[in-house]
Amino acid sequence: MSKYDPFMFTVAEGIDRDQYMTALYSLSAPTNDALAIAQALVTEQTTGTWTAVPEETEDVKLRSMGRVLGVYEFPDYERERPPEGTERTLLMQVAYPVDNINGNLPELLTTIYGNVSMIGKLKVLDIHLPPAMLKRFQGPKFGIEGLRQHLGVEGRPLLCGMYKPCVGALPDALARMAYNMALGGIDVIKDDELMADPKFCSVEARVEATEKALDKASKETGRRAIYTVNVTDRPDLMFAKAKKAVKAGASALMVNVYTVGYAAVQALAEDPEITVPILGHPAFAGTFFEAPFHGLTSALALGKFARLSGVDMIIYPSPYGKVPLMRERAIRVGQELTAPIEGLKRVFPGPAAGMQPGSIPQAIEDFGIDLIVGAGGGIHGHPDGTIAGCRAFHQAIAATLKHQPLSDAAKNGPELEKALAKWGEGNVATKIYSLLQ
Amino acid sequence: MSKYDPFMFTVAEGIDRDQYMTALYSLSAPTNDALAIAQALVTEQTTGTWTAVPEETEDVKLRSMGRVLGVYEFPDYERERPPEGTERTLLMQVAYPVDNINGNLPELLTTIYGNVSMIGKLKVLDIHLPPAMLKRFQGPKFGIEGLRQHLGVEGRPLLCGMYKPCVGALPDALARMAYNMALGGIDVIKDDELMADPKFCSVEARVEATEKALDKASKETGRRAIYTVNVTDRPDLMFAKAKKAVKAGASALMVNVYTVGYAAVQALAEDPEITVPILGHPAFAGTFFEAPFHGLTSALALGKFARLSGVDMIIYPSPYGKVPLMRERAIRVGQELTAPIEGLKRVFPGPAAGMQPGSIPQAIEDFGIDLIVGAGGGIHGHPDGTIAGCRAFHQAIAATLKHQPLSDAAKNGPELEKALAKWGEGNVATKIYSLLQ
Repeated sequence: MSKYDPFMFTVAEGIDRDQYMTALYSLSAPTNDALAIAQALVTEQTTGTWTAVPEETEDVKLRSMGRVLGVYEFPDYERERPPEGTERTLLMQVAYPVDNINGNLPELLTTIYGNVSMIGKLKVLDIHLPPAMLKRFQGPKFGIEGLRQHLGVEGRPLLCGMYKPCVGALPDALARMAYNMALGGIDVIKDDELMADPKFCSVEARVEATEKALDKASKETGRRAIYTVNVTDRPDLMFAKAKKAVKAGASALMVNVYTVGYAAVQALAEDPEITVPILGHPAFAGTFFEAPFHGLTSALALGKFARLSGVDMIIYPSPYGKVPLMRERAIRVGQELTAPIEGLKRVFPGPAAGMQPGSIPQAIEDFGIDLIVGAGGGIHGHPDGTIAGCRAFHQAIAATLKHQPLSDAAKNGPELEKALAKWGEGNVATKIYSLLQ
Repeated sequence: MSKYDPFMFTVAEGIDRDQYMTALYSLSAPTNDALAIAQALVTEQTTGTWTAVPEETEDVKLRSMGRVLGVYEFPDYERERPPEGTERTLLMQVAYPVDNINGNLPELLTTIYGNVSMIGKLKVLDIHLPPAMLKRFQGPKFGIEGLRQHLGVEGRPLLCGMYKPCVGALPDALARMAYNMALGGIDVIKDDELMADPKFCSVEARVEATEKALDKASKETGRRAIYTVNVTDRPDLMFAKAKKAVKAGASALMVNVYTVGYAAVQALAEDPEITVPILGHPAFAGTFFEAPFHGLTSALALGKFARLSGVDMIIYPSPYGKVPLMRERAIRVGQELTAPIEGLKRVFPGPAAGMQPGSIPQAIEDFGIDLIVGAGGGIHGHPDGTIAGCRAFHQAIAATLKHQPLSDAAKNGPELEKALAKWGEGNVATKIYSLLQ
């Protein structure tokens, strides 16, 4: 009898794909026995523990045990394993029974990365959900297409203006910024992630000040921007705040997805009383994806799970500014957000943090038009102020969509010209974190 | 004029300690300018961004800007910095205005580790909250003293029996295990983290089966154990399930803290309708603390934040079994949970995962008696079954408290004798993850 459970070790063709979700892991360890590790991982994450127990019957295994679909090594040593003590890189593909999880998002996380999150250099590279599980998630209410229709914006990226300073401003300052951003043609105005509900600037006060300013501006421009008010809080308080805000006329909501949890966001997004779009913010998300040997990939953490949670837009680090993420990773996140999935709307990727008009050509080359360009300092820090800051972005977007170099467009766009003069053409003006190098 | 903001760089004695919370960070980078990094970090996490903006007034800074209390280096180079390109280890102590956060736990996380969670090798080593902020947290309802009184257990660690298999068993199997564990003298029975609400074994069914079994056993033993039913789910569904379970007679609750989020647990623990103790489980917590250069320390992630969330007990990895955590780290977590804090009850540390009776002497040496010993396989895997498994643990605990070696106690404790014969004396029997070495 093999020490490796013949039921546990199977192949993808050997299971009913509708009954299992799969996860792909990388593991780095100087191990002697890759198969025993795969077996231990699946045991730990489904029916077993470190010693045999009477109630783990054949029936239980049949119903609930995970299955190993593949154990791979890179490089792919076939003849002999590398010398004793060498750290080996293993890839493991595992299938988990859908019925163990029953559509429960925290349990999905527990299953793919529960106790095994604490055993060593194990990272989750990807998961694939079968249709039966996917059906348990409503996903975004608006999505890219819904949001475009809602805002009346087709054929170009959205422009999202961020309130700056991050925290500390009073409602009247926000009203000034909102009014000016709207005159400059902004589509979405967002709160800062640090601006949730400080004593000096409550959700109510911000909604009132901002929405009034946007109403006023819309009479002049004929277009109405939306404002994603940050309702991040303890889930029960967040729900209460969000519903109150929507009733008070909030045109959209914002949540720090990674500090309230995916499932709290899912509950908010799937609530029928929440009739406005939701923008997700990545604060704290580095905890999930930054470590090369631990956690989840950015594509999963910022991409797939954000989409399952139901945000309509998500801001995240980009290769264009102050919080670096590799270009190919930022694009991969975008692909997870926008690739077609039956029954799950597409989410606007928002590569951001330190963007300025000079960043636009590269961003559109990387993402196409289904992109929300988020900017704070790059708008309000414009030499001629906030209105000019928004216009400079729109000029950069229009030029890029016509394949016109920004320096050309600047000849007929004085706002763009001044922005480029201040921050340069290209996306390198803002690397505050180049200090780290 | 210095490029370093004289308002931002201060010292601990220069601020009103009641108005600020502090955070201590480690940062590894081959930087040229440690002070500029500290300034960038504080800027990013409070009022600023990468370029000056008009509304960041003196007034805003005074109200909301963070302050640098200290920038240190290890080793502490004083004469010249290490050669260009060398990775330097910086320690930074930062103070954040309490009023920015307003007692909002997700915003507390956003403030200490928001965008900066994504900038590189930055880890949060500790935070200190001032009394004004601490008052916003109710903490555990029962705590160590309350739970001891509730259970009628003084002068020894609690014994917590875990249902095994983790997931897959049906309610009648759980009832058998519960009854037998209670006859063996268990104090707390816990669900597995993977057993939330599968189709084949719902919360309702588990509560009914288990509580009935515990009632029945209590008539024979004169003592009543509690059962922490796992209500982990999307927060709104979790609240509904928890309240329904409590009404249906659930004697306690369990939550996977790290997959639902600290704030959802806080809401549950502070809800007046939740009149029973709560046990926290660490599934997914490795995401928070495992990476040496990213995330939070285990003392923060498993210790301080769990206590702020209000769990009464928390299970976490230990040096005694299958999911390794360094001994000094496991003890540090326990200290965060049990050190006196005005107004915040103490939490039972539950170092666990692969514990067996042989692990007891070391565990009590490390934690004293304010400890909850969690065991699953070490109970049900006993050669004579579950009742004997519990008795073996109690014999090991009683012997250790009398300073009697386990091998001596085994002479008058046949259950302990058989456990030691199977798994050995000491805590090394269960290192399934020794496979990784």
